[in-house]
Amino acid sequence: MNEFRVGGRAGGPTARLDKLPWAPGENFLGLPEEHARFEDVGVVILPVPYEATVSYMGGTRFGPRGLLHASRFVELYDHELDAEPYTIGVHTLPELMLTGAGPGKAMRELRRAFDALLGSGKFVIMLGGEHSVSGPPILAHADRLERGKLSVLQLDAHADLRAEYEGTPYSHACVMHTVHERVKLVQVGIRSLTAEERALQRKRRMTVVFGHELDQPDWEDRVMRALGRDVYITVDVDYFDPSIMPATGTPEPGGGAWNPTIRLLDRVFRERNVVGADVVELAPLPGMVAPDFLAAKLVYKLIGFHARGRGR
Amino acid sequence: MNEFRVGGRAGGPTARLDKLPWAPGENFLGLPEEHARFEDVGVVILPVPYEATVSYMGGTRFGPRGLLHASRFVELYDHELDAEPYTIGVHTLPELMLTGAGPGKAMRELRRAFDALLGSGKFVIMLGGEHSVSGPPILAHADRLERGKLSVLQLDAHADLRAEYEGTPYSHACVMHTVHERVKLVQVGIRSLTAEERALQRKRRMTVVFGHELDQPDWEDRVMRALGRDVYITVDVDYFDPSIMPATGTPEPGGGAWNPTIRLLDRVFRERNVVGADVVELAPLPGMVAPDFLAAKLVYKLIGFHARGRGR
Amino acid sequence: MNEFRVGGRAGGPTARLDKLPWAPGENFLGLPEEHARFEDVGVVILPVPYEATVSYMGGTRFGPRGLLHASRFVELYDHELDAEPYTIGVHTLPELMLTGAGPGKAMRELRRAFDALLGSGKFVIMLGGEHSVSGPPILAHADRLERGKLSVLQLDAHADLRAEYEGTPYSHACVMHTVHERVKLVQVGIRSLTAEERALQRKRRMTVVFGHELDQPDWEDRVMRALGRDVYITVDVDYFDPSIMPATGTPEPGGGAWNPTIRLLDRVFRERNVVGADVVELAPLPGMVAPDFLAAKLVYKLIGFHARGRGR
Amino acid sequence: MNEFRVGGRAGGPTARLDKLPWAPGENFLGLPEEHARFEDVGVVILPVPYEATVSYMGGTRFGPRGLLHASRFVELYDHELDAEPYTIGVHTLPELMLTGAGPGKAMRELRRAFDALLGSGKFVIMLGGEHSVSGPPILAHADRLERGKLSVLQLDAHADLRAEYEGTPYSHACVMHTVHERVKLVQVGIRSLTAEERALQRKRRMTVVFGHELDQPDWEDRVMRALGRDVYITVDVDYFDPSIMPATGTPEPGGGAWNPTIRLLDRVFRERNVVGADVVELAPLPGMVAPDFLAAKLVYKLIGFHARGRGR
Amino acid sequence: MNEFRVGGRAGGPTARLDKLPWAPGENFLGLPEEHARFEDVGVVILPVPYEATVSYMGGTRFGPRGLLHASRFVELYDHELDAEPYTIGVHTLPELMLTGAGPGKAMRELRRAFDALLGSGKFVIMLGGEHSVSGPPILAHADRLERGKLSVLQLDAHADLRAEYEGTPYSHACVMHTVHERVKLVQVGIRSLTAEERALQRKRRMTVVFGHELDQPDWEDRVMRALGRDVYITVDVDYFDPSIMPATGTPEPGGGAWNPTIRLLDRVFRERNVVGADVVELAPLPGMVAPDFLAAKLVYKLIGFHARGRGR
Amino acid sequence: MNEFRVGGRAGGPTARLDKLPWAPGENFLGLPEEHARFEDVGVVILPVPYEATVSYMGGTRFGPRGLLHASRFVELYDHELDAEPYTIGVHTLPELMLTGAGPGKAMRELRRAFDALLGSGKFVIMLGGEHSVSGPPILAHADRLERGKLSVLQLDAHADLRAEYEGTPYSHACVMHTVHERVKLVQVGIRSLTAEERALQRKRRMTVVFGHELDQPDWEDRVMRALGRDVYITVDVDYFDPSIMPATGTPEPGGGAWNPTIRLLDRVFRERNVVGADVVELAPLPGMVAPDFLAAKLVYKLIGFHARGRGR
Repeated sequence: MNEFRVGGRAGGPTARLDKLPWAPGENFLGLPEEHARFEDVGVVILPVPYEATVSYMGGTRFGPRGLLHASRFVELYDHELDAEPYTIGVHTLPELMLTGAGPGKAMRELRRAFDALLGSGKFVIMLGGEHSVSGPPILAHADRLERGKLSVLQLDAHADLRAEYEGTPYSHACVMHTVHERVKLVQVGIRSLTAEERALQRKRRMTVVFGHELDQPDWEDRVMRALGRDVYITVDVDYFDPSIMPATGTPEPGGGAWNPTIRLLDRVFRERNVVGADVVELAPLPGMVAPDFLAAKLVYKLIGFHARGRGR
Repeated sequence: MNEFRVGGRAGGPTARLDKLPWAPGENFLGLPEEHARFEDVGVVILPVPYEATVSYMGGTRFGPRGLLHASRFVELYDHELDAEPYTIGVHTLPELMLTGAGPGKAMRELRRAFDALLGSGKFVIMLGGEHSVSGPPILAHADRLERGKLSVLQLDAHADLRAEYEGTPYSHACVMHTVHERVKLVQVGIRSLTAEERALQRKRRMTVVFGHELDQPDWEDRVMRALGRDVYITVDVDYFDPSIMPATGTPEPGGGAWNPTIRLLDRVFRERNVVGADVVELAPLPGMVAPDFLAAKLVYKLIGFHARGRGR
Repeated sequence: MNEFRVGGRAGGPTARLDKLPWAPGENFLGLPEEHARFEDVGVVILPVPYEATVSYMGGTRFGPRGLLHASRFVELYDHELDAEPYTIGVHTLPELMLTGAGPGKAMRELRRAFDALLGSGKFVIMLGGEHSVSGPPILAHADRLERGKLSVLQLDAHADLRAEYEGTPYSHACVMHTVHERVKLVQVGIRSLTAEERALQRKRRMTVVFGHELDQPDWEDRVMRALGRDVYITVDVDYFDPSIMPATGTPEPGGGAWNPTIRLLDRVFRERNVVGADVVELAPLPGMVAPDFLAAKLVYKLIGFHARGRGR
Repeated sequence: MNEFRVGGRAGGPTARLDKLPWAPGENFLGLPEEHARFEDVGVVILPVPYEATVSYMGGTRFGPRGLLHASRFVELYDHELDAEPYTIGVHTLPELMLTGAGPGKAMRELRRAFDALLGSGKFVIMLGGEHSVSGPPILAHADRLERGKLSVLQLDAHADLRAEYEGTPYSHACVMHTVHERVKLVQVGIRSLTAEERALQRKRRMTVVFGHELDQPDWEDRVMRALGRDVYITVDVDYFDPSIMPATGTPEPGGGAWNPTIRLLDRVFRERNVVGADVVELAPLPGMVAPDFLAAKLVYKLIGFHARGRGR
Repeated sequence: MNEFRVGGRAGGPTARLDKLPWAPGENFLGLPEEHARFEDVGVVILPVPYEATVSYMGGTRFGPRGLLHASRFVELYDHELDAEPYTIGVHTLPELMLTGAGPGKAMRELRRAFDALLGSGKFVIMLGGEHSVSGPPILAHADRLERGKLSVLQLDAHADLRAEYEGTPYSHACVMHTVHERVKLVQVGIRSLTAEERALQRKRRMTVVFGHELDQPDWEDRVMRALGRDVYITVDVDYFDPSIMPATGTPEPGGGAWNPTIRLLDRVFRERNVVGADVVELAPLPGMVAPDFLAAKLVYKLIGFHARGRGR
Repeated sequence: MNEFRVGGRAGGPTARLDKLPWAPGENFLGLPEEHARFEDVGVVILPVPYEATVSYMGGTRFGPRGLLHASRFVELYDHELDAEPYTIGVHTLPELMLTGAGPGKAMRELRRAFDALLGSGKFVIMLGGEHSVSGPPILAHADRLERGKLSVLQLDAHADLRAEYEGTPYSHACVMHTVHERVKLVQVGIRSLTAEERALQRKRRMTVVFGHELDQPDWEDRVMRALGRDVYITVDVDYFDPSIMPATGTPEPGGGAWNPTIRLLDRVFRERNVVGADVVELAPLPGMVAPDFLAAKLVYKLIGFHARGRGR
């Protein structure tokens, strides 16, 4: 834990209790209240432990909890940025419990949450849950811009472009289909899709960097060329190679590595206007913390790049 | 594995291949085709790996697969019955994949399946999946009798009598509420319920054997007195004590033991007309086979008791 | 989760956000703020994830976190008491992070915490961490009474009466030695001790119910006879049989069962004045929630028995 | 660990090194050399991590290692005997690596080992490995007595009386068939067998206590009446209920409990001449030490009962 | 799951049942019967869950089951080939249960199976099981050609060239020794071998690409130059780096990566005549699906490359 | 296992027992006594399973045991060196059990052990345990040279340069602070540190290769230039990328790879005088052997490089 982790406050029962070495609560990074008050912060973390449609292994609803716990062990100083990005302030909302009455209704509920949140002007990072939860925030952001003006940078092993899956258009396997007509979609790391999804990519002339193309020298440039000014970033953690991210529903071999991915994100934040982001599909493996920690560090990197743009 | 396990057939590609020591397929007990043909059998196993509403730990959709695999190691001879119950014939259907479009629609789909199946005259044992799947078969059986004539023997840690949970009346926590006006409900092993559920039990004068009453001498008699002639048995595996059944969503301490439970079921089959049964909420723990095996042996006990009534 | 679990508040960022279905924080039972404010509650939970001396398996520092998470799935209504004990109010303090500078210094720090806490007049239940943390609260309570007036009911597999272990008198294996001259010690479930510890038990004429005596009819009466008026209860979870409590450092076969233990505690609260309690040595097993849940339910039972005495 | 565990010797490199707080080696109980020298001891532990024929879950070859490691945490003082049985001396042999050239050859190799060992006059306790390894020691002991004079007390869930299994008469499922004509076999805890095995039990008029008979009051007497003067004890750990022994190949529900089993063994050692013993089929579950510890404590109980007969 | 996974058939009990959303059986890819009938298919999968000789960790007998289950989540469309290779037809045989009477006898049994299978003209891919099972198919293929005409491409961490191991020449550590005089052996990824094995490699002038040479630019060319026209491919999954393949007996650091390996195999199929293949030594880790999935995708890649050569 | 693993000796009870196929004991590599006698060997392994201060995940006290067990499966022949380095002789000391009385006292105890050991002239490799144990050996070596003459090559994810952590200067997070004024510190793989640690690095002009610089071409040269003549190597296994080393307390993404690290170490041994080494912070993951094996192979590589310098 970092320096805030020991020496927090008990919440103020009595003066004598205040002097004890309390650990802080379970917010992102384990920040003390002065850096985590909703009113004052620049960044809001929204955990959405939604898991309803089915994949190989389950457990994405434990993702936010695993990521938040891991975040307490992430160092607050970022030596690559030579900065302490948490000083921008990070508020962690409670988990949002979407209805169990069916995916359509749940997605409408989530949309309402984003409409309320985006009004606050905060930079919101959502933690999934299954990938279907990315639909509502993308559409909420898209609706604040002209049609097609929002670019979506999708880091993912799967195209998620099916029109329907298991009887519903709101499956994790369909999430990009629900938004693809409203946004400019740039897919990176894709290595599993159907013939129909491939046809749709071609028809819509999407920029796609397949998994086996990630060791080509120009893939980062191809991504940058395709992205418009305003960008939403959605990271399905199965984008990463299973060697570093085994904790996800369907881990496909041949995925993204840590350092090149961070370099891409660094550049996107420097050269574009990133309006929001999410990290989804983390399904913690009991007893194995490395994947949760990677996901937490990824979120802090996003915060760091965002904060740099705000002078932190 | 038992004697059928080695010496099966490859499915007949060529005469020479037939003589090799093949293992049989993944049906219940690993039976050879002659004991497992739908047309000829007395018992049908229906796996329904449905998991949509959320509990503490997930994984009930892996229950049927775990139970079926374990069943291959259950001995075919039942020394307590001094019989080989599999000779009544046991057909295992493929997994039934209910829609992901929402629990209401999924339950209607399952009801249609049961309407089709019950017409066949087979004794159907359903393997869950979460407990909500018990609603459709209970109602399908109840509709074949006068209102209130079907008794339901519910072995369970939870009353499952909520009117709604997480926004839907089709949650695992509501399943008995959806049927309680149509059947006579007898609950055994209950040790977790809300004040509202307790009030409903009292109002409807249900016979309830709580978990801490399972070491009283008369609990079996109380159950038998309450059951009418026609009985459907639903076993939520969390009924069992967590010492022998840790592999379930919310394992409550103070549950049922193996031998007394088998004795109760033995008596119910001898003294009543059991029309159907299910075993639900098994959520296999990776690397730990004992719970899966217990559930598989429980299913074979049900088959043995049923077969005895048919002279096997 | 229970009825409070969905429908909590986000902490009030904006009016629109307040209406969303938030999950509450990670306090014991997941209570909303109105039932968990320090000033108003009757019960305080103090998590002390201290783990410094070594046993077979480690992990007791993860005990409070596992227990607290499990508590969110404990039903708020207690059907045996026909009451909702949480209405007495339960505040959960942050984790107390004792110094890493050595066990002696850490124990002094913990003593200071208890001196501060006991002044508040709340009923404090401490969650360990290793058993050594029980020393300071026992001595803090003992010092508020005449010498020898405090009885300590120790549910434990090990006598913990060594004078020193691994170079320190503050080891988990010594905790009862540090207090045994100041209190009346009643040990239940003991099934592992040295010849020296046995000699001390005899010399001090302690009441000891060994593990293999737990199936004798009179053990509960022997315990009650030995307890004085004021009682502190310390539960090392390895007291329980490993079948229901495998998640602890050294799980000894032949331990306590759930229902008889609850009956004993029920009686102790009814017939004595219980001044405080702790539940220690839980070391969660990754992927297996049953032991954490049992420990959480045990804590809620203690709260229920305490609340009954206050008219809840 | 107990008092020997800290303060051992490094094996004597230099005088200064000798004074350091070394842990002892990996022998049974972690005994210092003076209590573990082959020449001086009364008891010899023989680990045979043999695993060749197949069951549901594997891993019996890790059994000896898991049991030996767990034994270091077993208390050296036995409070039920009020004695320190290790003082009889316990030597732990290295693991015996039987040939991989086929089970028949391996069993002959093991027989030669026992012929050599029994000549030493030590009390040998073998740690398996799969149950097939019990054949050679039983026959080695039987050959030192008249035909049929050796009684074998088999604690087991399975009858292991098949004539052949998976193409060999040396399978774990056949081990008692290989000896049943040479010894008097008394089976306890049986709850899985074929019709053919049941017929053999009847034909040979074996005394069998089935699993569901273990809660009858007279089962211990039935066992004692059937045993002759000289007894070999073989404990397949799947005899125990899966609640306390999930770490075995095929854990059958409805097995033996700890305290009654210890009472039976206590009586057998007091009233009969026990010539040897084995504990087999332990297959450690990664991360879960309770089953290994139970098996280690069982072995120390056997040593304690044996030592008592020798005045320790 | 892919599009066949939901919407399969129940096997035809009644017309009404046929319309339900059944999942298909446990064959490779979960194919419906029309693409999996032995008579019509181009590819046959032979699972041989044989595990008799011992390595660090066990569990290779669970390999075929884990791989087959994982295969249901492999996408049927291969975007690198822009094809749907399953249309060549893939029949999955039941598991072949080799005798437990010793490795020599088991290997002869497997040889007979291959003699029968190869007569069918199908492309057979065997799933191990331990590596010793590769001996019989290699010799069966070699015997259909002139001596030395068959090349064997062995992807492996270990040379497996010992003359004998643990008392038998049929150990997994010896499998390439049993064939090395009959075929041209090309070893890739080797990073663990004895001095004797190294000497044999030199004496026989084998082409060996060691693990640490896999980042040299010319290794692929070295392999291709060494291979003759007819090639059998045996993949011991420990060839892969443990980062992506931890699920094997002895995972050696410094192994093969996914994309370069797929490129090599692509080229071998394009430029040589591949007569058969196997994937062995997968030992699934409970709760971790990534390695099983990688192995399943590898098998589908082999099928894809084979099918391309047949115009699919 | 290698050729020594089968065919060891039982320790000489009787002549007949000596001929049996015993496995050797639990020393590093499982060497027979003739290669492992303290007096004759060139290398001594010192296991120090010390774990007192706290990190994300615990378990470093199980590190030495896991590493030693894994070492038995490391091949004795090193094909890169074309040598059998074990012939230099390797003695494995018992585990050194440091006091539980606090970290300061424990570190003094360890220092005394090293003062005794270094007098023997052996090359000592210590196995941790948490990183704090590296302090005493580094200072013991430094004190044998002029101030600042010892270079320390630290492979690590964390700078470990805090002045105090959790109330003590002897935390694992402080270990390099305790030595940094006495030695020349060269840090490699660092990717987590505080602003204060970064300032200290700058102030002291330390050579630091950060994690994200490990793919730059010149990092190895930068390291070599910074190292003086006499070098102590400390490897915190979290230096490695979590893909190959998930088994450690806080696995940070973006770490070192196997082959380049081995090449660096090879060069350090060739071009410098390495006086000692340690490998710390391994915390084995139950059921997953790859990380333990990597750590064992790393130790054998260190031995191989050392032995080469002695002509082996």
